[in-house]
Amino acid sequence: MGSIKNLITTMGENAKNAAKTLRSATTVAKNSALINIANQIDQNRTNILKANKQDLANGKDKGLEVALLDRLMLDDERLNDIIESLNQIVNLPDPIGEITNLKYQPSGIQVGKMRVPLGVLGIIYESRPNVTIDAAALCLKSGNSVILRGGSEAIHSNHALYACVKQGIKQAGLNENCAQLIDTRNREAVIELVQASDYVDAIIPRGGKGLVEAISNSSKVPLIKHLDGICHTYIDKDADTQKAISIAFNAKTRRYGVCNATETLLVHAYAVGRILPELIAQYLAKGMELRGCEETLKLSNKITVATEKDWNTEYLDAVLSIRIVSSMSDAIKHIDKYSSGHTESIVSENYTRSRRFITEVDSASVMINASTGLADGFEYGLGAEIGISTDKFHVRGPVGLEGLTSQKFIVLGDGHIRQ
Amino acid sequence: MGSIKNLITTMGENAKNAAKTLRSATTVAKNSALINIANQIDQNRTNILKANKQDLANGKDKGLEVALLDRLMLDDERLNDIIESLNQIVNLPDPIGEITNLKYQPSGIQVGKMRVPLGVLGIIYESRPNVTIDAAALCLKSGNSVILRGGSEAIHSNHALYACVKQGIKQAGLNENCAQLIDTRNREAVIELVQASDYVDAIIPRGGKGLVEAISNSSKVPLIKHLDGICHTYIDKDADTQKAISIAFNAKTRRYGVCNATETLLVHAYAVGRILPELIAQYLAKGMELRGCEETLKLSNKITVATEKDWNTEYLDAVLSIRIVSSMSDAIKHIDKYSSGHTESIVSENYTRSRRFITEVDSASVMINASTGLADGFEYGLGAEIGISTDKFHVRGPVGLEGLTSQKFIVLGDGHIRQ
Repeated sequence: MGSIKNLITTMGENAKNAAKTLRSATTVAKNSALINIANQIDQNRTNILKANKQDLANGKDKGLEVALLDRLMLDDERLNDIIESLNQIVNLPDPIGEITNLKYQPSGIQVGKMRVPLGVLGIIYESRPNVTIDAAALCLKSGNSVILRGGSEAIHSNHALYACVKQGIKQAGLNENCAQLIDTRNREAVIELVQASDYVDAIIPRGGKGLVEAISNSSKVPLIKHLDGICHTYIDKDADTQKAISIAFNAKTRRYGVCNATETLLVHAYAVGRILPELIAQYLAKGMELRGCEETLKLSNKITVATEKDWNTEYLDAVLSIRIVSSMSDAIKHIDKYSSGHTESIVSENYTRSRRFITEVDSASVMINASTGLADGFEYGLGAEIGISTDKFHVRGPVGLEGLTSQKFIVLGDGHIRQ
Repeated sequence: MGSIKNLITTMGENAKNAAKTLRSATTVAKNSALINIANQIDQNRTNILKANKQDLANGKDKGLEVALLDRLMLDDERLNDIIESLNQIVNLPDPIGEITNLKYQPSGIQVGKMRVPLGVLGIIYESRPNVTIDAAALCLKSGNSVILRGGSEAIHSNHALYACVKQGIKQAGLNENCAQLIDTRNREAVIELVQASDYVDAIIPRGGKGLVEAISNSSKVPLIKHLDGICHTYIDKDADTQKAISIAFNAKTRRYGVCNATETLLVHAYAVGRILPELIAQYLAKGMELRGCEETLKLSNKITVATEKDWNTEYLDAVLSIRIVSSMSDAIKHIDKYSSGHTESIVSENYTRSRRFITEVDSASVMINASTGLADGFEYGLGAEIGISTDKFHVRGPVGLEGLTSQKFIVLGDGHIRQ
């Protein structure tokens, strides 16, 4: 425990010192680091894939489940994707140093805001090795130094990828400690990292609910985090039939295991007849399981009754709960009670109710006539995404480079004093 | 303890329910509540001043120091100031509901951000009763419900002022629980409040360092906080003599007890001769105590040697530490090491060094040729200030209405689905 604490303290100090240099690094230097990392990965494919094979073999020995092994797996195509995402981050505008809202005040001073890095970020993730590169790249570009802690099952892959990061940063003339990887399997390292508030400015846990909750409970550092994605699609009485069917079908079935999938469909009683039977048929044809309120049971004998637990569940699976409501107010009440605050959508042609829905519903993303599946940093034009925040503090919804920054005030005077 | 926990849980539930209605309250309703509160205060001057007299009498009995009794004291003039500040908040634009950056994305959806309240805020403050009104008003205007906890020495004054808040809210047809006052002296209430992360979205401690540190250590809720104000003024070698003297004098002596007062003056060696003797004479004429590095001792026998502790101290008093540096890099290094990240200013006519200073110095406010005393929400055009954040997360520097808000994404489609 003592030595792990020392390790994290040393890494924290190194990261803090690196952050002091990185916060005023030029865009050119940061971009060359990213390009170098991409080249390093390209040149070291053999090593990386070899390390990954070792992780996969160990994982199989340990009896890891197939889905987890798939997330862990790297091949040439996945390395191409990683390289491609690095190039995309190179092409994003540098958020740091941007000055906005510079305005004269009555005293004669000009006051504006300059975008600056948060400082030192800790990223804690699970089995996907590509996060090592993604997270390091987003932190670098946003001027933050980063301490990475990947899943122990991916330790050899992460190590091989991190070697590319380190080399790429060094070649660009930046401080090597701009990105560091915790390379012990000891879990105490995570606890020490989330307690290291003297060194770490924010922690981003990327992983399942268990990981995020454990970190939330022990962290002394602010978190940018994502818990559940219990998303709702509400079909209003004035919904267009075709839009409603197409949006509700897409929102649930595009991919089952994603946080922006709709888990509960709310349908206004007046819209049921022309929309729900067709939609139910489509869901069932897709092989889905449907659970619904008493009213829905009349529509199909394949629907089972939904319990209180269903409304509270993020299925991440081919299961959907359906509730028929008698007004939009009831739909909003349901959302207020059960939503995880991730994404909700209304399907309606009615101006007043659409406007009320986006005003009253308190979620990170609120949509009109669009699939919840569109809740995503790339679809929103952020260019990249380090995660989706279901918090309201600091940053909400898909988190791009800007979410990793802060703003300081700048004041330009000409000898101005305070009266 | 059990009953205090129940009290805070009930207040938390009430606040959360009130927040659901307040987040879509109209600007007109929120402003009428503020106007009503002002009228209530005006009509209840006798009661309020009577309650305040009781607090003052109790305070004297307990032997509270004079400065504290002064902070506690209300009179007609101070009530006028409170009413005036309410009117100012009425005149501020409503931040809630503002939609920015609504742009078409490649898929055809329009994506923008809508400003929304944080939800429920907890404000913990010390002896000044005016904070009861100020904090309630800023929270109301920004659509947040608030739980107030004032200093126990001001309990009768706070109670009388809060009665006006409650009445004013009620008259405007808003939920009374939009603002609640914890009216027990029991300190457990503070601990329960800062642990109530199921109900409270952010805590703002307003008070001395002791209060803020105690709350930081026990809080499970994000804080908007202010610790030290160890501010620096750096006089560059190319500083204009008159601007340097006037800014450095104002920054320290305008008021000693404020967080934006300069506590350490850094002077480039080449600027010493033409600036420092005159400035030292002015400071000494004002009756100040000066402590400096070895080099400064040559300039006056009234200067005593500054220790490591001096560079780390927020004097909040008629004391200044002075250090002569041989380069701007040394000045920035000193700031990096000792500053609390509140406000730093460079006095210089040199373009390149001024630009470098505002880029490299990592503080909430960074100034060129202006007094650190200008670091203030009103001077910055925020219209009001609930405090100054020395954190980087969520909000930095003077915190106005916008700092009490978050932003959600809104997505406008026309049947759009995710491919």
